[in-house]
Amino acid sequence: MGKAKTGFGIRDSGFGKASAVAFSNPESPISNPGSVRILGIDPGSQRTGVGIVDVDAAGLTTHVFHTAVNLLDNDNFPLRLKQIFEELRDIVLAHRPDEVAIERVFMARNPDSALKLGQARGAAICAVVAHGLSVAEYSAKEIKQSVVGGGGAEKRQVQHMVSMLLNIERKLQADAADALAVALTHAHARASAQRLRVGVALATRTRGSASSWRSFR
Amino acid sequence: MGKAKTGFGIRDSGFGKASAVAFSNPESPISNPGSVRILGIDPGSQRTGVGIVDVDAAGLTTHVFHTAVNLLDNDNFPLRLKQIFEELRDIVLAHRPDEVAIERVFMARNPDSALKLGQARGAAICAVVAHGLSVAEYSAKEIKQSVVGGGGAEKRQVQHMVSMLLNIERKLQADAADALAVALTHAHARASAQRLRVGVALATRTRGSASSWRSFR
Repeated sequence: MGKAKTGFGIRDSGFGKASAVAFSNPESPISNPGSVRILGIDPGSQRTGVGIVDVDAAGLTTHVFHTAVNLLDNDNFPLRLKQIFEELRDIVLAHRPDEVAIERVFMARNPDSALKLGQARGAAICAVVAHGLSVAEYSAKEIKQSVVGGGGAEKRQVQHMVSMLLNIERKLQADAADALAVALTHAHARASAQRLRVGVALATRTRGSASSWRSFR
Repeated sequence: MGKAKTGFGIRDSGFGKASAVAFSNPESPISNPGSVRILGIDPGSQRTGVGIVDVDAAGLTTHVFHTAVNLLDNDNFPLRLKQIFEELRDIVLAHRPDEVAIERVFMARNPDSALKLGQARGAAICAVVAHGLSVAEYSAKEIKQSVVGGGGAEKRQVQHMVSMLLNIERKLQADAADALAVALTHAHARASAQRLRVGVALATRTRGSASSWRSFR
């Protein structure tokens, strides 16, 4: 499997597998000052999608990196978890994200697939919390709402909108697209929260000066 | 939560919670030469059981340590996974196990609990594979067969037999008992495998010398 040691240009794992190819935006090698780098993860026990976007103070997003970690070569399940943990750790070290977002899972198809997904999710979360990063969770509905504008959107629409929003011309691998979608959702959510905080700060300052004015009487 | 920094005597986390109390065998602070130290884990999203036993060349087992990591104080699920990861890492660093055993889960009650269990399991496995340790998996049936002698044994019987086999006088917390049980199962399995290997080696040597004897003719 390809390890994401560097984040420049289009990089192949060397094994010619489409799912193991990582794409980086050569114009965004490091986080710009004032912008926040967000790592989105779409965990899975067969493939784990990873996507990184930068969001600036104005709420504008830029594509930084995406890949889908292919786990199918490892028959041994603990080794798959190790692979998720190590590849995510390498991606974190190479790209230094500030925040992490992951899809919240409400229900899985069956207990067996839920257990497998849970283990992959646990490994992915460990890899990022081990670096002191906090993890925000978003439901599939919130992600679709944020990226496409409707909670009932199809997977293909999400892929299409992610490509549009991040100006990605190549066809996006589905798990990588989902990872970028959750990163975008977090970018949008934190931009809204920031606008709200600015509003609250302004309101508080207004009220504050009124109260100090009253204290002068 | 109490971190298992040291492994000597009976240690309390300082919060007076029974489930956060770790017990060490003061006579087995470090692995004896020739013996193998086995870490057993019973992962759970509310409590994760941890048990350590040493097994010597003759297949005799000694109790080293056990605890149940209480995760209920963390409402935030990613932080629970971080807690599992970090406490297990500390236990690995303090006790330096050679091998790890974990219960294989065949079916969970429902997708939601399977997902939670899976995440806890993923975090636990990551904590040990990150240290280069390999993980052996045993089914609940194999564990009961190994510890009690019957695959259909009750949980209470397992607890009782673990206490008997390891000479533990205090009442064992259920998850810690399960963790010790899977460690014992691995100890028994590797002792049997060793006897088998010795047998095979003897047989091979016999056949080998016969063949070399024949080659003299």
